[in-house]
Amino acid sequence: MADFTKEYFRMSESDVALYAHSRLDFFDMHAQLSCCEIGDGNLNYVFRVIDTVSGKSIIIKQAGPVARISDDFKLSPDRNRIESEILRLHQELAPSFVPEVYSYDPIMNCCAMEDLSDHQMMRLALIEHKKFPQFAEHISTFMANTLLLTSDVVLEHKAKKAMVKNYINPELCEISEDLVYTEPFYDCPRNIITPGMEGFIKENIWSDQALLLETAKTKHEFLTNAQSLIHGDLHTGSIFIKEGSTKVFDPEFAFYGPAGYDVGNIVANLIFAWANGKATILDPTQRGDFCAYLMETIQEVVDLFSKKFLKLWKEQARTRVEGCPGFKEYYLGTVLRDTSAVAGHELMRRIIGLAPVKDITIIEEEKPRLWAEKTCLTAAKMFIMERERIKTGDDFVKVVLAAEKQIGDFR
Amino acid sequence: MADFTKEYFRMSESDVALYAHSRLDFFDMHAQLSCCEIGDGNLNYVFRVIDTVSGKSIIIKQAGPVARISDDFKLSPDRNRIESEILRLHQELAPSFVPEVYSYDPIMNCCAMEDLSDHQMMRLALIEHKKFPQFAEHISTFMANTLLLTSDVVLEHKAKKAMVKNYINPELCEISEDLVYTEPFYDCPRNIITPGMEGFIKENIWSDQALLLETAKTKHEFLTNAQSLIHGDLHTGSIFIKEGSTKVFDPEFAFYGPAGYDVGNIVANLIFAWANGKATILDPTQRGDFCAYLMETIQEVVDLFSKKFLKLWKEQARTRVEGCPGFKEYYLGTVLRDTSAVAGHELMRRIIGLAPVKDITIIEEEKPRLWAEKTCLTAAKMFIMERERIKTGDDFVKVVLAAEKQIGDFR
Repeated sequence: MADFTKEYFRMSESDVALYAHSRLDFFDMHAQLSCCEIGDGNLNYVFRVIDTVSGKSIIIKQAGPVARISDDFKLSPDRNRIESEILRLHQELAPSFVPEVYSYDPIMNCCAMEDLSDHQMMRLALIEHKKFPQFAEHISTFMANTLLLTSDVVLEHKAKKAMVKNYINPELCEISEDLVYTEPFYDCPRNIITPGMEGFIKENIWSDQALLLETAKTKHEFLTNAQSLIHGDLHTGSIFIKEGSTKVFDPEFAFYGPAGYDVGNIVANLIFAWANGKATILDPTQRGDFCAYLMETIQEVVDLFSKKFLKLWKEQARTRVEGCPGFKEYYLGTVLRDTSAVAGHELMRRIIGLAPVKDITIIEEEKPRLWAEKTCLTAAKMFIMERERIKTGDDFVKVVLAAEKQIGDFR
Repeated sequence: MADFTKEYFRMSESDVALYAHSRLDFFDMHAQLSCCEIGDGNLNYVFRVIDTVSGKSIIIKQAGPVARISDDFKLSPDRNRIESEILRLHQELAPSFVPEVYSYDPIMNCCAMEDLSDHQMMRLALIEHKKFPQFAEHISTFMANTLLLTSDVVLEHKAKKAMVKNYINPELCEISEDLVYTEPFYDCPRNIITPGMEGFIKENIWSDQALLLETAKTKHEFLTNAQSLIHGDLHTGSIFIKEGSTKVFDPEFAFYGPAGYDVGNIVANLIFAWANGKATILDPTQRGDFCAYLMETIQEVVDLFSKKFLKLWKEQARTRVEGCPGFKEYYLGTVLRDTSAVAGHELMRRIIGLAPVKDITIIEEEKPRLWAEKTCLTAAKMFIMERERIKTGDDFVKVVLAAEKQIGDFR
């Protein structure tokens, strides 16, 4: 029988069932456990364990010693500690927007958490063209709370420095530094490029010296700006959603970085869903309706985030320095500038880099697929180059519409 | 007999002599040791131990549990570990510009290092109006090397993150956050203000909302920008100097912060020496000569630092991102912008805050004293408000001359 108390090993489905039975205080002794690996992320193994008698269920997530996506990424399983600690912290800062964590096991590098099987991964729901009218409200609260309440604006500075130290996350940061900030910007062998896009990318991205200079600046911003404890991978594949409920998970990339990183990721991934809608919904009314919903959501995410950020600042800013007139507006302006840049980076790296998104790859026909990719890249470039002036929800939406106009209709 | 191997205690002079004899492998067994406390800093106890037989000598520096300057500052003696590690690192990065460290003792929180009694503390030498023609050459090499070679430009990013973690320095940073970035900007009871300066400070500093807003921005830059492993307290009291030799010590404030912090401290402290010369040298030729030397040195420090920084970047930048045309000039521009702001902050905090400098306090007559303080504060404000445009050595010098012109002559 497997011993879970001595030394780490990668668990099989039956190991996990045994683990849930023997090591967790969750199922009762007469439970009949069935276990299934359900992970489709790039890094970890995710198991759902269900008691077929009571129907109670739980998720167990185990970190492996290398990434699933590629053996190139050797990863310390310390990310599992970071993940469980951050989920608990987010529970405090933004209750009801994260799954509950039941336990963390530093030997097996796994954690047990709430089963959200009644929710759907947001990316897949958006690909099915479902709408979630409360999403902007939910995610803007989650981001304003988690980003502002972990910053020097609110935290006592020595306590914040202890947090910075505890969440230094070199290996996961390296993935973002490479995949988001470096590889999309040259002909890197690891890039995955859709046939027919080579010329466009070479001409508009790799040859644009002004763009490359701006991406060097934004990369060093990512490397050095220890502003907020960010989620670090806040795309629609890290969100479970159902009508009236939004849950953010997978914070293993968390570290102290630019607050705009999370907001920019949300914006970019809503744009992918918009591009998918434009490219794949045949009925014009239905298409118009779904795409308008997404533009409205982007606008609301940015504007509600800004509003809640300023309100929370007023209530919680700790010292006279942060109370100085004009400072919170200036500070928010820098967060929105970074939001714009990161939206651009996320759009680029998912079209050019190693990790494409399903919203785009699911578009089977060549014409709409190339249209979607070109439109996303065109918007991406504007988001990076014009980041200093992009501040309101309306500004963000206008960039997407300008890119759409520039690329034209594929129909 | 005192036991140095069990538990920390504050050593007396005789304890230190005994310690040097029994715990260090430096003096021979027939040495006749004499010990004298020579520290005049704000935080630590510094002992010089000399063997009256051979003439060999050594410095032993012990950290106390509270600062010397005020019991308000409770300080972890971990700063002594940081100090000895940084001195050794600086030895590697900028050999010949730091004293040699012989040992570090984590129980007694002390380190033994090279005795530089043939050197003079630079602040005192400047107060004696001595000139050091090689200082700009030396300090610009020290700063370009220590600041660029510890940054993400040169260091592998995971190795840099390990360094960030190792040198998180909450208590010493808090001192700078309070004394440099907060207290000088309001009527804080801890401020030490020269009689006759109250009105000027109230009108020009505390009531200037635009200035207060800029200082909030620069404070958060200090709190969040993990750019380089900075010395953190690089004023002329942290430098031993003699003709042909410059030694930087006291790096206990070191942490990952804005590179411009060190450069700005050097500039500001040269300005204090200049103001002292203007205020106290009676002979016009001698005064003109000494003050011109200081303006020239400021110009050279900035320009040589910039030149060496760019050269080193070209030779050592690690990846294609840092090689992007225009990026090193942009990056240096941000370091010089921070240099300007920090020069302003250092000038302000030494005139208004808890820790005045001898260059100014030694000016006995009221008229020249007030002139010096007003001129320094006027320059300080320009350095903070106009930091985006201040880039060359000439720009820095012109700020001082403009401030001098604005305040007028006291004679």
